[in-house]
Amino acid sequence: MTRVIDAAEHAARFKQEIREQLAQLNEKLVLVGVLAAERGPSATYAKYAQKACEEVGATFQIRRATRLDAESVIRAANTDPGVHGIMVYYPVFGTERDVYLRDTVEPTKDIEGLHSFWARCLYENRRYLDAPQEVKAILPCTPLAIMKLVEAAGAFAPRGRPLEGRTAVVFNRSEVVGRPLASMLAHDGATVYSFDIDGPLLLTPSTDPDGAHSVIETSVDRAGALARADIVITGVPSPSFELVRAEEIRAGAVCINFSTYRNFDADVQEKAGAFVPRVGPMTVTMALRNALRLFQNTRSGATPARFVP
Amino acid sequence: MTRVIDAAEHAARFKQEIREQLAQLNEKLVLVGVLAAERGPSATYAKYAQKACEEVGATFQIRRATRLDAESVIRAANTDPGVHGIMVYYPVFGTERDVYLRDTVEPTKDIEGLHSFWARCLYENRRYLDAPQEVKAILPCTPLAIMKLVEAAGAFAPRGRPLEGRTAVVFNRSEVVGRPLASMLAHDGATVYSFDIDGPLLLTPSTDPDGAHSVIETSVDRAGALARADIVITGVPSPSFELVRAEEIRAGAVCINFSTYRNFDADVQEKAGAFVPRVGPMTVTMALRNALRLFQNTRSGATPARFVP
Repeated sequence: MTRVIDAAEHAARFKQEIREQLAQLNEKLVLVGVLAAERGPSATYAKYAQKACEEVGATFQIRRATRLDAESVIRAANTDPGVHGIMVYYPVFGTERDVYLRDTVEPTKDIEGLHSFWARCLYENRRYLDAPQEVKAILPCTPLAIMKLVEAAGAFAPRGRPLEGRTAVVFNRSEVVGRPLASMLAHDGATVYSFDIDGPLLLTPSTDPDGAHSVIETSVDRAGALARADIVITGVPSPSFELVRAEEIRAGAVCINFSTYRNFDADVQEKAGAFVPRVGPMTVTMALRNALRLFQNTRSGATPARFVP
Repeated sequence: MTRVIDAAEHAARFKQEIREQLAQLNEKLVLVGVLAAERGPSATYAKYAQKACEEVGATFQIRRATRLDAESVIRAANTDPGVHGIMVYYPVFGTERDVYLRDTVEPTKDIEGLHSFWARCLYENRRYLDAPQEVKAILPCTPLAIMKLVEAAGAFAPRGRPLEGRTAVVFNRSEVVGRPLASMLAHDGATVYSFDIDGPLLLTPSTDPDGAHSVIETSVDRAGALARADIVITGVPSPSFELVRAEEIRAGAVCINFSTYRNFDADVQEKAGAFVPRVGPMTVTMALRNALRLFQNTRSGATPARFVP
């Protein structure tokens, strides 16, 4: 009964749109992937990105770097007018230094939407960079991919804020996915329980649709949150996470896993309304979508080529 | 034979200078300490800061916050014209989110010098904010405190770059102390071996005194580095660190410990030229020195009240 949503299939539709829009540009989009990661499956991800770029008609150049010269490779791409977007494969150092590195990517080329400039826009619910609301801010690509899959799962309301009145649970509150995702859900109207090793938080949407959500500590536990949730999103990068079981969720809930580990028990697929086992292909696609938007913003003069010191 | 340097005694001289300069201002300096840390000895540090402020004639207001409202407390202090400097006691979240929080402090009020704006100045060896070289950049207070203690230990050359030809070893490469410190040592002319759990790095000063140092991976191990070092600085926050022993260091080496743990074996005090068992009192003092400089920069119109978006 559960509808299983294939992120790759869904991504194909977005890629079609992106391909059409890219074809109308008078310039071929050139994206750079900085591959300095010394651990993890980054080389594989870079290949996926390259394939996705070929599909939409963009160029993807993989630039290999050591951890120590990743920064200069990024800076060179920042100032190279022939480069329109930059993607960095983490971990590079695997320490807090990666956060420093993340912010060396020029925001106007940051197709992953991870720069703290974009994070600030997101957390403050500033969706546009300009007063006439013509220039949209960039959203981080994995949370954005997840939002598109929430929509694909039929969880969006036809009018008003798309998640008005909905309850969501997110397991993971990393700075790159879980925390921005919880904020985006709440800004779209959802009440959000956010779980991570440092305790649960409750995000409540602002009554003003343009306002930022509020956040408080909560005593609601996993069981209580799951029992209320219309949407359950997991991203726990550990095999020891206690799998979310069918008996814990509401019948018809939308269940999405963005961890490379399985975070849902198999029986969830008999009770959920929709199940998204992986998000990856949509993430790359959203990075391409961001690339197109950044290109358009810069070319139209809506944003300067560089706007953060 | 080893000279033991008391950071508190040395700090007293700096405080005297700061007190005299503060007395000449037509306004009393008001500093805010945001105390949201849920772990660690932050409340004690805040009391030290309060005492140091009293000594120099500045006001120190402790503002207690939960981890969730620390950001709004910081933002309120950012825009409050009656607040001249801000100090945040970490950990607040104890996660990567603290890095985000660190960058919400307005750089012109960041008396700890931890904002990524200041970090970028430091790593690029930009010592001034203006072309006429009148407005000095702010340095992070703990590394700055250590540099002053290196100077107090007699390790500075009388002319040229103060550490020209010297070799230093730093155990700790955190983004807030060890990495900026290693950079500052190298920018002052030293060859620096930087050790941390993710391997040793070698920093070599630029031949151009205004240039940034270079960094490479190195196969030189602890023994090799210590055998060459004129200056040994430790900041390993762990009781399991293998203590630096007398037999490992050069006779006459300057040894400085900034960890709250003891990182040197007691026998070092018989072989070192100078030994600094703790840095803390100088750190607070350097934060006050930064506060004075930031105040002067803003009041003179040399820097705007806010200069980072």
